[in-house]
Amino acid sequence: MNSKPFLNTVLSPRLLDLYDISNTVVVIIDVFRATSTIATALYNGAAKILPVDSVPRCIELGKITGGITAGERDGKVVEGLQHGNSPAEYTRSFIEGKTLVLTTTNGTKLLHMALERGASEVITGSFPNLTAVCNYLVKANKNVILGCSAWKDKFNLEDTLFAGAVIQRIKEHFTIHCDSSLMAENMYTLHQHDMYSFIRNTTHWHRLAAYGLEKDLEYCVTPDVANVLPLYDNGALVVAAE
Amino acid sequence: MNSKPFLNTVLSPRLLDLYDISNTVVVIIDVFRATSTIATALYNGAAKILPVDSVPRCIELGKITGGITAGERDGKVVEGLQHGNSPAEYTRSFIEGKTLVLTTTNGTKLLHMALERGASEVITGSFPNLTAVCNYLVKANKNVILGCSAWKDKFNLEDTLFAGAVIQRIKEHFTIHCDSSLMAENMYTLHQHDMYSFIRNTTHWHRLAAYGLEKDLEYCVTPDVANVLPLYDNGALVVAAE
Repeated sequence: MNSKPFLNTVLSPRLLDLYDISNTVVVIIDVFRATSTIATALYNGAAKILPVDSVPRCIELGKITGGITAGERDGKVVEGLQHGNSPAEYTRSFIEGKTLVLTTTNGTKLLHMALERGASEVITGSFPNLTAVCNYLVKANKNVILGCSAWKDKFNLEDTLFAGAVIQRIKEHFTIHCDSSLMAENMYTLHQHDMYSFIRNTTHWHRLAAYGLEKDLEYCVTPDVANVLPLYDNGALVVAAE
Repeated sequence: MNSKPFLNTVLSPRLLDLYDISNTVVVIIDVFRATSTIATALYNGAAKILPVDSVPRCIELGKITGGITAGERDGKVVEGLQHGNSPAEYTRSFIEGKTLVLTTTNGTKLLHMALERGASEVITGSFPNLTAVCNYLVKANKNVILGCSAWKDKFNLEDTLFAGAVIQRIKEHFTIHCDSSLMAENMYTLHQHDMYSFIRNTTHWHRLAAYGLEKDLEYCVTPDVANVLPLYDNGALVVAAE
């Protein structure tokens, strides 16, 4: 019997360097809202998404590529960028065939950390593309890190719940010796049937709901409404081939 | 109406510097086994416990004070020290009236971090002294950090469950805007009636049970069997006055 690959959950970017991520698929998770927006834009036909870690770089790449610049800091659209970090902005009629240059508080930071530390593949995960992520990980049959982007390095519940949803679905394919994963699965099992009400208890809800984004946040915990697999390839997130 | 003090849970020493801990009581939590052993030794009459962060310093202070040197690295007694990190070693007939000089993998490290970062008070918490910790925190009426020692900076379940037990009992006395605390309380509520079986799923259980310490670990999740309040004062942990 071949041994199964390992799956670990990392609860904050601060903890990523505790893990060897070579030969590993790293799933970047930023449920509210970067990775939900990435899945949605690609599902609606965006040609590619360039994740960048600074606002000046976002503006620069927007000029070079002719792409749409978008991003947020602390949950708000950044001055100098054209669009924000709401999946609702990226309808098919708006985004199809276009390039999106995106910078966010937490998700793009973790993505670049994973690349710098030598992950063999980087994909992004969110409830809108839950099934695509699960299918990809099972098929890849490699070690997995479920990387929660957190909020300014502090643990958050929504990313953890997504990690738990993945684990609940695919755990029999992996070796899991990881308290973070056990906790994440427990939390998802506990709340999978009351997600819309439970997320109203999270700190992020209180932060974003102040800007009137309740519908956005409910969308971001709805499974499989934008079921594509964003894969990082040569500087861009693109839809992975089946 | 006066506002209630804040309570936050820190899931790893790596995350401690994300919080302002001045004017704050920091509870050091290292359920398997440092803070369970500290509560037990003081309950059984130890005069004081000197927590130190290195083995050479432990040996040096043992010589200076005439105290018993004790500690572990990676769950095992360290060569050169007299005793280990099992609460079962510190019976009244052995420890009463004596000084214990203790060094451990995770707990003593976090304790020194909290002191360096300017915590106004440092106490230690574990299931054996759960009620004493809760009573102290309510009476102090100050901001609280529940500091999980974790395992080599990785999240662990047993420290989180203890944080959750504290939160479940005293939450109405505090302002809690903290996803870590919400998760910890959820996890404790989910498992409070199956602790002996649930802890068998943790990574730490597998690590320590290999050394035949199952009885130790069950003791370490039993509430109020050594109900004193260890308070750090001038280099030593001593029993706080009522």
